[in-house]
Amino acid sequence: MTELKIIGKPVARHDAWEKAFGLTKYAADFSMPGMLHAKVLRSPHASARIVSINTGRAERLDGVKAVLTAKDVPKNESVTRFGQTHTVGGGFEGLYRVLADKKVHYVGEAVALVAAETEEIAEQALELIKVEYEPLPGVFDPLEAMKPGAPQVEEGRSNIITHFEVIQGNVEEGFAQADLILENTYRVPFVDHAYLEPESGVAWIDEDGVITLRVSTQVIEHFRGIAEVLNLPHNRVRVIAPYVGGGFGGKEDITVESFIALLTYRTRRPVKLTYTREESILCHSKRHPYVLEYKTGAKKDGRLTVLKARITSDSGAYVYLSPWVLTYSMVTAAGPYRIPHVHVDGYTVLTNNIYTSANRGFGAPQVCFAYESQMDELAGRLGMDPLEIRKINYLAKGESIATGQVLEHHVGLPETTQKAWEALGAKSPGRGKVKVGQGIASGMMSYGRMMFLHDTSRSYVSVEMDGSVTVRAGVQDIGGGQSSSLCQIAAEVLGVPLEDIKVYFGDTALTPLAGTTTATRQLYMSGNATLMAAKEVRQTLLKKAGELLELDPERLDLVDREVVDKEGSGKMLNLTEVVRACASDGLPLYHVALFRAPFRTLTQFKQIEGQVFPDFTYGTHAVEVAVDEETGKAKVLKLVASYDVGRAINRLSVEGQLEGGAIYGMGYGLTEEVVIERGEIKTPSFSEYLLPTAMDVPEVQTIVLESGDGVGPFGAKGVGEPSVNSIAPAIANAVYDAVGVRIRDLPLTPEKVLRAIKQKEKSK
Amino acid sequence: MTELKIIGKPVARHDAWEKAFGLTKYAADFSMPGMLHAKVLRSPHASARIVSINTGRAERLDGVKAVLTAKDVPKNESVTRFGQTHTVGGGFEGLYRVLADKKVHYVGEAVALVAAETEEIAEQALELIKVEYEPLPGVFDPLEAMKPGAPQVEEGRSNIITHFEVIQGNVEEGFAQADLILENTYRVPFVDHAYLEPESGVAWIDEDGVITLRVSTQVIEHFRGIAEVLNLPHNRVRVIAPYVGGGFGGKEDITVESFIALLTYRTRRPVKLTYTREESILCHSKRHPYVLEYKTGAKKDGRLTVLKARITSDSGAYVYLSPWVLTYSMVTAAGPYRIPHVHVDGYTVLTNNIYTSANRGFGAPQVCFAYESQMDELAGRLGMDPLEIRKINYLAKGESIATGQVLEHHVGLPETTQKAWEALGAKSPGRGKVKVGQGIASGMMSYGRMMFLHDTSRSYVSVEMDGSVTVRAGVQDIGGGQSSSLCQIAAEVLGVPLEDIKVYFGDTALTPLAGTTTATRQLYMSGNATLMAAKEVRQTLLKKAGELLELDPERLDLVDREVVDKEGSGKMLNLTEVVRACASDGLPLYHVALFRAPFRTLTQFKQIEGQVFPDFTYGTHAVEVAVDEETGKAKVLKLVASYDVGRAINRLSVEGQLEGGAIYGMGYGLTEEVVIERGEIKTPSFSEYLLPTAMDVPEVQTIVLESGDGVGPFGAKGVGEPSVNSIAPAIANAVYDAVGVRIRDLPLTPEKVLRAIKQKEKSK
Repeated sequence: MTELKIIGKPVARHDAWEKAFGLTKYAADFSMPGMLHAKVLRSPHASARIVSINTGRAERLDGVKAVLTAKDVPKNESVTRFGQTHTVGGGFEGLYRVLADKKVHYVGEAVALVAAETEEIAEQALELIKVEYEPLPGVFDPLEAMKPGAPQVEEGRSNIITHFEVIQGNVEEGFAQADLILENTYRVPFVDHAYLEPESGVAWIDEDGVITLRVSTQVIEHFRGIAEVLNLPHNRVRVIAPYVGGGFGGKEDITVESFIALLTYRTRRPVKLTYTREESILCHSKRHPYVLEYKTGAKKDGRLTVLKARITSDSGAYVYLSPWVLTYSMVTAAGPYRIPHVHVDGYTVLTNNIYTSANRGFGAPQVCFAYESQMDELAGRLGMDPLEIRKINYLAKGESIATGQVLEHHVGLPETTQKAWEALGAKSPGRGKVKVGQGIASGMMSYGRMMFLHDTSRSYVSVEMDGSVTVRAGVQDIGGGQSSSLCQIAAEVLGVPLEDIKVYFGDTALTPLAGTTTATRQLYMSGNATLMAAKEVRQTLLKKAGELLELDPERLDLVDREVVDKEGSGKMLNLTEVVRACASDGLPLYHVALFRAPFRTLTQFKQIEGQVFPDFTYGTHAVEVAVDEETGKAKVLKLVASYDVGRAINRLSVEGQLEGGAIYGMGYGLTEEVVIERGEIKTPSFSEYLLPTAMDVPEVQTIVLESGDGVGPFGAKGVGEPSVNSIAPAIANAVYDAVGVRIRDLPLTPEKVLRAIKQKEKSK
Repeated sequence: MTELKIIGKPVARHDAWEKAFGLTKYAADFSMPGMLHAKVLRSPHASARIVSINTGRAERLDGVKAVLTAKDVPKNESVTRFGQTHTVGGGFEGLYRVLADKKVHYVGEAVALVAAETEEIAEQALELIKVEYEPLPGVFDPLEAMKPGAPQVEEGRSNIITHFEVIQGNVEEGFAQADLILENTYRVPFVDHAYLEPESGVAWIDEDGVITLRVSTQVIEHFRGIAEVLNLPHNRVRVIAPYVGGGFGGKEDITVESFIALLTYRTRRPVKLTYTREESILCHSKRHPYVLEYKTGAKKDGRLTVLKARITSDSGAYVYLSPWVLTYSMVTAAGPYRIPHVHVDGYTVLTNNIYTSANRGFGAPQVCFAYESQMDELAGRLGMDPLEIRKINYLAKGESIATGQVLEHHVGLPETTQKAWEALGAKSPGRGKVKVGQGIASGMMSYGRMMFLHDTSRSYVSVEMDGSVTVRAGVQDIGGGQSSSLCQIAAEVLGVPLEDIKVYFGDTALTPLAGTTTATRQLYMSGNATLMAAKEVRQTLLKKAGELLELDPERLDLVDREVVDKEGSGKMLNLTEVVRACASDGLPLYHVALFRAPFRTLTQFKQIEGQVFPDFTYGTHAVEVAVDEETGKAKVLKLVASYDVGRAINRLSVEGQLEGGAIYGMGYGLTEEVVIERGEIKTPSFSEYLLPTAMDVPEVQTIVLESGDGVGPFGAKGVGEPSVNSIAPAIANAVYDAVGVRIRDLPLTPEKVLRAIKQKEKSK
């Protein structure tokens, strides 16, 4: 491994052919003989008492095989967990009910389940279930929900799930030192994941009685939660999810799993459930809307002195991952900046809105919009260049963020910023009422999980008798090439061509557990586990080869299915000769490696202190935007994504992630919003919920910097989520540059921009 | 583990319920959507040149998707291998052709394959394939085939595949010392495996292009051989075979695998092939018929002085496992007896008969019939009790067999013999022409593979977060409870009830490789691997529990899902508490253990010397037989199977194996024979090939002795094959006792017995 041969190359993924030809099977493509179809009866009320449920007529409908309500769920109160460890504590685990029992808490909450011979019969049966509701007052605004006397979403429990703090220095002192103080409130909306494959799955009972699910999930380890709902031992549930048609955090929580498992357990027949697009938008989690009250102080020379911020997050009707999303926001609330005095208060609050949980970025894009808008406005007020004010405040390796976490690895922001800006080039000329502006924004986001989650992953690498290699890993491939990068790592270490690698992934029975495919953690975690496992096998091979060749194994390398002497004696062996010699000696040509992220045990869950994440990924977006002053419509003309990725394992995949992330972030900046009024979603389809289309997407230029200083394999960092982070503020900053209006409320719809332009003109 | 709680108990197998209710799926039960059906065109000639094959009309038949001949097979010459190691050498690997090319070598050899939309169309297509043959002379008797000038079965190759020798002392000297010399020739027939599930399988291509087979095999590791036939990397073939509907060695070689893999690879569609019963009898391997020329010498007091033997085995038209079957015969040719001077010559010879290969007992029952008939006749000639002559000659622990292998473990034959005889009780009275006799025979047979095969097995044990346990092992469950005993071992070591164990088995992708499920090796090999893996996890748990309880882990035990202090401090913990604490620390609660049998590298393959097997299982059969002097029909009235099993892991399973083995051996003794005339099988169905039916089966009394001195887990020995060994000679000895005729030619059909009685009467 003196010189990398496969790592860093822009190679085709192992599944490229199958995907291009439509052969790849997703959960929604999966069927079983004798399969029933499920449908879910959902609450039309945001808050109501369930007086009675009568399922008799539905049960008697021909072709209906089961109708289940809360009373049929062995353990109806479930919690969202984080893979293998249960040590989080804090008392605010993400409790939720599988089926509503006494009350409904949001529009769309599941009340009853039907399994029938056809989808049509299941639909008819839903209409025959009679539920009597007694409407109750609800609360729909988190700030309202925090007030004393507000209706309680969960009876007997405060709506405030948690109050977190980050404190550094003394903000009073900071404000005293400031020459300029800037105070603004920002708002970001509910956002849908809008994956290609909606929530879907098939469950069946295998011949040994194991409840087996092929589902679209990012967390096969939910087998435990599903088993608990059914009151079965964990090992009686198997979850299979290799290819997932998009996750974006929306498949981190359980979606269809408990429903189909319950129906299969009852009927002993396979059961399938795929949400309609409308159901997906109306009934499954969203990205948290935030209210971000930011008060920042700076010296005349641009040096930041203070940040006081208050962040309020709408958790919707159930807790799910809200406290952890807020944690991410807290840690990066001050951005990648050196600020001596910081005090951030964060709240996440129950309301009777749709519940909110993980979404690509996990709390980071919300605060990035605030801190990068603030930076731009500060630059303007101080008459500084927006790049300059950032550069003088960027943290450097060895310095610490407001929690006290020391940045132990390279902080590449000066380079990412400079390169992004240079790539953007001279501003294009405007035309008439169409004005052009440029904007920049930087961000930091962790990869890997919070250290107090005690994260681990396992990977199983084995060499076959002909030298071909099998990797088994519990990752899901949600489109990021999670499985392909493991192939590259194994091929590099074992000196075989990529086509000699076969990877099995995403099956709790078949693959060792790798934890969740979330938190931009799989390249870091399972990549390192695969590296460890492959190195162990490599060592066994080289040791045996050394014996056979009578050479020090240190001199030997594995290259192209051969063992070669790096010191040029010309001695060599075919890989298969060494493999056979190892087999004869009964030497293990496999290894299951366990990679442990650095651990830390938290003793309190209020003030977020010290080391929270293993490392961060840093990057900058630069955009050029044209704003039509007559319509208010902003259009991105150029987009540059510039990131220090540590090491690009597969350059094509990295570029793909940076491009995809940028467009995902662009939608957040310009068009995407789940509009909710008193708990009712008004944007139930892609006609109202507006994703960027091919027509809206500019060419994205990606700049891939490789400091080699990440904690992933070969120095890689994760980019899946960080790639989304700073697009929206870069657009807002460019809009300001173009037309002089600052929008502090995402998305930057034509209506908002136009209103601001009009207002600005009026106040002239 | 101070006192065994689950090991040794007569517990129900994990799959008992599913099997009782017919829910268990075998390969023949398996179907896939869009599946094609395969048929095989077979040679009607025992020896012929293939002049031409015309497949045109068959290909044009509606619904035919592929017609393949030898030219379509990427690598047509394949070898039978022994799992992971390829180190056998000897130059007589079991070469065979997937499809006949220039010649056919036996009646039933596969010549062409068809895949079609239905079985009926495939059958029709077979009739449309035109093969022109030019018949050649054949050879059908191994003794003829050994003669110079005999037709060569494989052109350019001697018909004698191998000549093995076992030599100890000097037989001339031995004969000089003998007071009595007894010389006889014994013959044993071709025997069919007669499994409930015939050879069967379905192949398909998974979405990643892996050729996947659900087949009825004892060797999932044939994935390598199948890959080589297709010229693919090994990791592009996956073989799945958990439940097998009977193997008896007949599913140790490849049967349908290459055929369905080739057809699937060509058509890209799933393909199924299940042999008809006739096809199974006519075209797949049989147990080797032997000619056994035995010359034994003894002193007046019964002490054996010498054995000179010559064994000739009919390999049929291909080598397959014939040399290895012969090896087993060579090692135990002298039986479990102390004989100072031994010379055994063994030959296995190609003929144009159906090929022969593994069958339960693997060469041991053939020689046992000879040596135990000889012992009985010696006793008679010397006027000794048949038990007595055996007892004075039985080898004891510490002594060695003729190869020089020292018997390092308890030789329980004095006990098994005494108990068997006592259990048989006083002889029942005869009635008129029906005479009653009693007979006894003992045997030894290895369990585990020959040491120069460098045998290894792996097992993967993991503990889930709720304390339930998963075992993954590459064993096939061929009905012996192979998977269930692993559950017991894991439950015992980890202190959880049996119902908390889930076992996944028999899948090259899902389970670590365990080697073949043959050679009575899985309890020994995978049992030990499971024991090792479970102990490793146990140690992790107890160490952590020790920390939590502040007690020396040595004091702790795992009992019923709890950690308890054996020294009675009363301190305890739930298993799940310890599991969670381990997970928090990132301690691995899984282990993949590798068990290595003792190894030995052979330098020559002629004289079989020294240590060949890890250990042997010893046992005795005692039978009472009624012989009708008018019809010659012998009927077993009582049957006692008395074995030292080392340790009964599951008493019910051990008794089941001893009962099943006894009946299997009874068929060998009395009725079973595949009759072949000039290469043509005359017994193509169960109307001609006579298995013992429920009406023929006496009550079998089993005596299970536990010396605790086996090399398997908890001191267990294997019993699957040894249980067959000595029934046939016990019956022959009892027939002699009843009517005074000695039949030296199995099976003891009424015709043979009657002829012998008539001859004896005539010679009076």
